[in-house]
Amino acid sequence: MRPLILALAFLVVPLALAQSSIERWGLFEAALDGPADGNPFTDVTLTATFTQAETKHDVTGFYDGSGTYRVRFMPEVSGEWRYVTHSNRHELDGKSGTFTAVAPSAANHGSVRVAHTFHFAYADGTPFRQIGTTCYAWIHQGDALEEATLKTLASSPFNKLRMCVFPKNYEWNKNDPVYYPFAGTPPTTWDFTRFNPEFFHHLEKRLAQLRDLGIEADLILFHPYDKGRWGFDRMDAASDDRYLRYVVARLAAFRNVWWSLANEFDFMKEKTESDWDRFFQIVQASDPYAHLRSIHNGSKIYNHTQPWVTHASIQNGAAVVDPERAVLYRDAYRKPIVFDEVKYEGNIPSRWGQLSAEELVFRFWNGLIAGTYVGHGETFLHPADDVLWWSKGGVFQGQSPARLAFLRQVMEDSPATGIDMIDKWQDERTAGKAGEYYLIYFGKDTPTNWPFALYKEGLKDGLVFQVEILDTWNMTVTAVPGTFVTKKRDAYVFEDAAKKTVALPGRPYLALRIRHVAEGTH
Amino acid sequence: MRPLILALAFLVVPLALAQSSIERWGLFEAALDGPADGNPFTDVTLTATFTQAETKHDVTGFYDGSGTYRVRFMPEVSGEWRYVTHSNRHELDGKSGTFTAVAPSAANHGSVRVAHTFHFAYADGTPFRQIGTTCYAWIHQGDALEEATLKTLASSPFNKLRMCVFPKNYEWNKNDPVYYPFAGTPPTTWDFTRFNPEFFHHLEKRLAQLRDLGIEADLILFHPYDKGRWGFDRMDAASDDRYLRYVVARLAAFRNVWWSLANEFDFMKEKTESDWDRFFQIVQASDPYAHLRSIHNGSKIYNHTQPWVTHASIQNGAAVVDPERAVLYRDAYRKPIVFDEVKYEGNIPSRWGQLSAEELVFRFWNGLIAGTYVGHGETFLHPADDVLWWSKGGVFQGQSPARLAFLRQVMEDSPATGIDMIDKWQDERTAGKAGEYYLIYFGKDTPTNWPFALYKEGLKDGLVFQVEILDTWNMTVTAVPGTFVTKKRDAYVFEDAAKKTVALPGRPYLALRIRHVAEGTH
Repeated sequence: MRPLILALAFLVVPLALAQSSIERWGLFEAALDGPADGNPFTDVTLTATFTQAETKHDVTGFYDGSGTYRVRFMPEVSGEWRYVTHSNRHELDGKSGTFTAVAPSAANHGSVRVAHTFHFAYADGTPFRQIGTTCYAWIHQGDALEEATLKTLASSPFNKLRMCVFPKNYEWNKNDPVYYPFAGTPPTTWDFTRFNPEFFHHLEKRLAQLRDLGIEADLILFHPYDKGRWGFDRMDAASDDRYLRYVVARLAAFRNVWWSLANEFDFMKEKTESDWDRFFQIVQASDPYAHLRSIHNGSKIYNHTQPWVTHASIQNGAAVVDPERAVLYRDAYRKPIVFDEVKYEGNIPSRWGQLSAEELVFRFWNGLIAGTYVGHGETFLHPADDVLWWSKGGVFQGQSPARLAFLRQVMEDSPATGIDMIDKWQDERTAGKAGEYYLIYFGKDTPTNWPFALYKEGLKDGLVFQVEILDTWNMTVTAVPGTFVTKKRDAYVFEDAAKKTVALPGRPYLALRIRHVAEGTH
Repeated sequence: MRPLILALAFLVVPLALAQSSIERWGLFEAALDGPADGNPFTDVTLTATFTQAETKHDVTGFYDGSGTYRVRFMPEVSGEWRYVTHSNRHELDGKSGTFTAVAPSAANHGSVRVAHTFHFAYADGTPFRQIGTTCYAWIHQGDALEEATLKTLASSPFNKLRMCVFPKNYEWNKNDPVYYPFAGTPPTTWDFTRFNPEFFHHLEKRLAQLRDLGIEADLILFHPYDKGRWGFDRMDAASDDRYLRYVVARLAAFRNVWWSLANEFDFMKEKTESDWDRFFQIVQASDPYAHLRSIHNGSKIYNHTQPWVTHASIQNGAAVVDPERAVLYRDAYRKPIVFDEVKYEGNIPSRWGQLSAEELVFRFWNGLIAGTYVGHGETFLHPADDVLWWSKGGVFQGQSPARLAFLRQVMEDSPATGIDMIDKWQDERTAGKAGEYYLIYFGKDTPTNWPFALYKEGLKDGLVFQVEILDTWNMTVTAVPGTFVTKKRDAYVFEDAAKKTVALPGRPYLALRIRHVAEGTH
């Protein structure tokens, strides 16, 4: 764990020296002294070229205040790296060094990437089974609440967190933030050409803490919940672009960063769709590591077929009420689908924040069956003040996280290539990997019996399967005694050779897990 | 009607002279004598420039056999048109003439275009309410059956027909066609550089007959149901491209043509997706009138966000089992959605051809509520031989067409801007135009009572509405006595000021039609 701690230390106590050793996918940082006069954010250019054998990356550095400049780098390949800086200021130009990228620690699998078209995996190939949650403005709540949020996350099933860079001005979120991203005076007197290093030190500390908890940070770069209070939702185009480049220069070396261009992008009436296209292209061009990129919608969905979108981030609660709805987005976008907002478990008056825990867990399971991924959020009114998890963090009041931990365990124990529907557009219950592994989810139905029957793909007579009954709400796994042996029934279906059935307890939220265990004797 | 008859006459008895008068959106044709030696299909170039004031169109002519060349043109603007030909052969070069495009006859509204993003209208602005059907190989059945098909269509609700250019070799479709599109000897000895004018004369006669019945021809340019029997599904790229250009040169002047690049394009394993992209671009570039263009899928949907796609033509029966499924495609593609295959009313063993009439009509209504369009097909086993409507035409055995006529009447009587969901992703029953017109479809539910309640968009207190009960299966419209007056109930809904409800007969397939009739006195 030493390198991780080292990396974190740099964020808290910036050093003027660079590390000599960093783990693969760790955060290397070189600090340089340079000019503090004029406007270093705009006057000074700083890049660095990192090389190892035939691999070369050009990365952009940034001004961190007090005459200090930094260059960060995430080595994706182990071994010795060399770097040299380039600048329009001689103090920063031609500085060079070396460091070694060593084997990653056990919990470090690299950045998350798209895998098998519709799924995700870490850079080292380990599948990433997304169970996301949402605390939009958690980094703007002060240390006490922020530390409480981290503690809650540490014992939760969540491995991805949606969070905003900018503070939030919205119902239940009227408090001022501790830090502002730009130099100036709140509420609206900002110099958008000068960033506030303190703000970013704080953000980076939180990103590193999430990383060390194994949580991906789905970082929301713009959002409409400002409404002119600070004006970060209505900067001019040059300021938008400068902000994006600065954020990417600072944060791209964090392996757990995902770029979410916006929350409810279409509700930002000051921007056009071509602005969003441009923002994507800036982020794509600026990020040497090609972190995941998407954008979250209000009522109008962005065109996720655009080449700069890596996966579709979708708000639509209705889509995961039924796997046959959710799967349609896969066909349209041909990319991983993450339902980042499906309404929240809670009890607020707004219709988007009053799901039961059962309903939210049901939506996660529907998403899984569709071969897609779902996000959690919680909007219970707070007994004392406006601390709703969905925006500020804190502690859970709801009952879904425990069930999502059970779901995650099921996911971790499923095929590495991901869960896909077995007979898309025909059977809305069954997903898995044909011939090997099946999940059959009964949702709100309360069956007492299931005649063994599987769609023909990947099957032949005589394959032996074992069946388990999952109670997705009560979090139990019950093995069904004996085995089932396939035999062709008709043009579409194989049944058990002895027409065996599975007795079920007649409750809602049941699922079957069916695994191929052997060739049969038939 | 005179100009229509004239146009048709040209197709049957080609003349060497051009018309002096043609109705707007009619088919102008100039015939020219030229060389018959060599290979006129490939050796001779022929184009013509049609001009009227500042409007100019360059169109491509074609060789029609026996030394005759033709240039066709559909005038989209009334008035006097001039044309002049260009050719690499002097006999065909520099020929000029004039004609007058006169006012269209009553049934001629021009070509169908996209309107209001998700809907269709004729060129003159008349809404086109798509009620499609499918007779894939009807033009390959011989005159007796083909005339019977036309007779059936003439008294049907269908205003669009999906039909293949090439003959079909598939279950229930093993008969040889009467005509082949290329010169050569069946089954597989073809000269793909020489077309068979007889084949095209026949096709054009049928297109003109459909036009005169008010039916759009959704012309399927390629399909996989050849399987090498004739080889039209596996021509080389040059032959594919030549074929497309010839078809477009001959047929683009028919105002009722839509280009469907393929049926189940992804089942044509000899083609790649970039082939389809190229085909689209050829058709787009060759067609002076920009007729509608789409492509129908098997299990993989084409990327309908491509700029050359005008609307999404989709096979997915599951998508119209529920309006909330169907509407998702609108969000993804931002174009009109036509579910051209949702399984068929019939009784064949295949699971795609055994819907009840009730189920097929239900799917049409779901499509309507989603703001999309649906296609019909019928696959009843034929008492004597293999005449299934879906492929060969003939007569209907099913019960859905009468109900689709009722549906079409409802559509014709709805707002010109089209039916859209009122509260997308929240309310799967209600569509229309906010504040003016609502359809609430109850599907398979059997309600006995409906408390008047409408989503807030477009409403305020005191608006007066009238309600009718539609029985979509029994084809009745029953006015509810009295009126309903809006009053705000909560953050989302307006109810009747006196909390009036509508009594319903407790049967499936009911709908309500609700129209704003006046400002109230509140």
